[in-house]
Amino acid sequence: MSALPAVIASERRRCVALLSSVLDMSYLASAFRQVMPDVDLRFGADLGSLDDVDAAVCWYPPPHVLASMPHLKLVQSLGAGIDHFHTDPHLPQTPALCRIVDTDMAGTMTAYVTWAVIHRQRSMGHYLESGAGAQWQEQPIVPPGRHCVGIAGLGTLGVACAQALRTIGYRVRGWSRSAKADLPDGIESFHGPEGLDAFLQGCDTLVCLLPLTPQTQGFLNAELFRRLPKGAHLVNVGRGSHLVEPDLLQALEDGTLSAATLDAFAQEPLPSGHPFWRHPRIVVTPHIAARTEAIAIARQTRDNLDALERGERPAAIVNPKLGY
Amino acid sequence: MSALPAVIASERRRCVALLSSVLDMSYLASAFRQVMPDVDLRFGADLGSLDDVDAAVCWYPPPHVLASMPHLKLVQSLGAGIDHFHTDPHLPQTPALCRIVDTDMAGTMTAYVTWAVIHRQRSMGHYLESGAGAQWQEQPIVPPGRHCVGIAGLGTLGVACAQALRTIGYRVRGWSRSAKADLPDGIESFHGPEGLDAFLQGCDTLVCLLPLTPQTQGFLNAELFRRLPKGAHLVNVGRGSHLVEPDLLQALEDGTLSAATLDAFAQEPLPSGHPFWRHPRIVVTPHIAARTEAIAIARQTRDNLDALERGERPAAIVNPKLGY
Repeated sequence: MSALPAVIASERRRCVALLSSVLDMSYLASAFRQVMPDVDLRFGADLGSLDDVDAAVCWYPPPHVLASMPHLKLVQSLGAGIDHFHTDPHLPQTPALCRIVDTDMAGTMTAYVTWAVIHRQRSMGHYLESGAGAQWQEQPIVPPGRHCVGIAGLGTLGVACAQALRTIGYRVRGWSRSAKADLPDGIESFHGPEGLDAFLQGCDTLVCLLPLTPQTQGFLNAELFRRLPKGAHLVNVGRGSHLVEPDLLQALEDGTLSAATLDAFAQEPLPSGHPFWRHPRIVVTPHIAARTEAIAIARQTRDNLDALERGERPAAIVNPKLGY
Repeated sequence: MSALPAVIASERRRCVALLSSVLDMSYLASAFRQVMPDVDLRFGADLGSLDDVDAAVCWYPPPHVLASMPHLKLVQSLGAGIDHFHTDPHLPQTPALCRIVDTDMAGTMTAYVTWAVIHRQRSMGHYLESGAGAQWQEQPIVPPGRHCVGIAGLGTLGVACAQALRTIGYRVRGWSRSAKADLPDGIESFHGPEGLDAFLQGCDTLVCLLPLTPQTQGFLNAELFRRLPKGAHLVNVGRGSHLVEPDLLQALEDGTLSAATLDAFAQEPLPSGHPFWRHPRIVVTPHIAARTEAIAIARQTRDNLDALERGERPAAIVNPKLGY
């Protein structure tokens, strides 16, 4: 009996490559080994023979590598979108391209945004620091009903955040490109370029949850910061290129903004010499506001590969031409 | 004209003493000076002539002092309750005793509890620390729908917290002494000693929002901690004496609990040598989860004093015998 499972395992052993030019994918390893105990896991730095690879899990994949994997059955995006594949001009046509389907994302994002708003609004960072010095020192308390959070972008995630902050007691307003129907009660809404100024004037905290489009690239810039109340707090959980990074540093320097909480950056991982690290009024998090948990990625990759090997079409397959 | 306002001011100048044997009351000074520009403000350390004092704002007042103020018109509690006056066995009968009426308290408490839950559940402390070292390092993400928050105490504050956490997506359960009707949708509820075990078994985070009574004193003890899932997170926003402090240290030491967020302590301010300060898995905050903001205290004190000087009865007056 003792040799048999090993033989079966070796016959069925599948090879999964974890590929990213921007992210250390090693955080996924233990989840993949848990979900696919026999997996032959390969990382970007040491891929071995490209002939072996059955599935490639990708986030901004390095160029040309996917096209060099002749037996690739599945290209699994690490996210719900596939826009990050633009980094590879030679995306092969044969393997199935699947996205992650994550119904937990709204809650995960809402928890992050809610934390970011309260952490700053209630000076929690001050308490964490003064705790180390055994300093019992109250900061002023402003009740949530006198603090207004503005959410730019009223998609599923934006509305979920608005609703949670409203339930706590914050004043909440939202802005979107076009008018939104069916917003939850108590959310003041603004839209279009003509509504932006009135929206911004009331935002003690501004949360960016916009999609990235040519129109929203660089949305968070010096000119916009000046239209916010002086000393507003910026939370960017959109994409790195929504933000003009030097404009943020200047706005913090001259008091236009008081603080920023950032989860997305023009370059990720944020380079170790970047001025955002260690800035006393910037909180940096490593793009985790709504990252899908590792175990879900591993399970969906396995399920998609199982389906393909049975000759079935995975539910989460994407048409690369349409992008969804 | 130039001398006149000064004369009027000096005639009407009112003297307010800020008295506490546990709290540095200096954080109230600027709010009082803003609301009562001519106020003659006295602090515990340097009270001057006790003949002058018109109003005393108190939080655990030092004994005997109030009885030595012959012209005292108003004793203003710093809180909604007056149980903290037990520190003064010689509370005078003549001046009016008023409490703070704070409709913002539910939102303020909810923001704190929500922050405490998310901060730990999403490893935000880790990110704040690794930020200082420019470390881009994701922590595992568990979606809120797979984390259960249990709230012991389903009064106004407990229900408000439950509702906010539920809106974010957390699983939420509550426990109270007697059965509660009209709980919001989606909150699982337990009650009585017979329901406590089933309640505790599911709490990844336990929030204590119980009133302090002889039955709930020491509620948070070693025996209770063992009935929680191993590695649960404790949030105490009740009173300091709900918690058996040495039991908490032991439970953190042996892994029964993974972390604690504490806003109330047996002795306040928490003594600088106390082991809770600097404990790597305890977050200490200086009793600010739901403290009324300084400006509201100053305004209500002024309004109560105005009413008394006009011969009226302030709305927030308390019957010391009933305690409310």
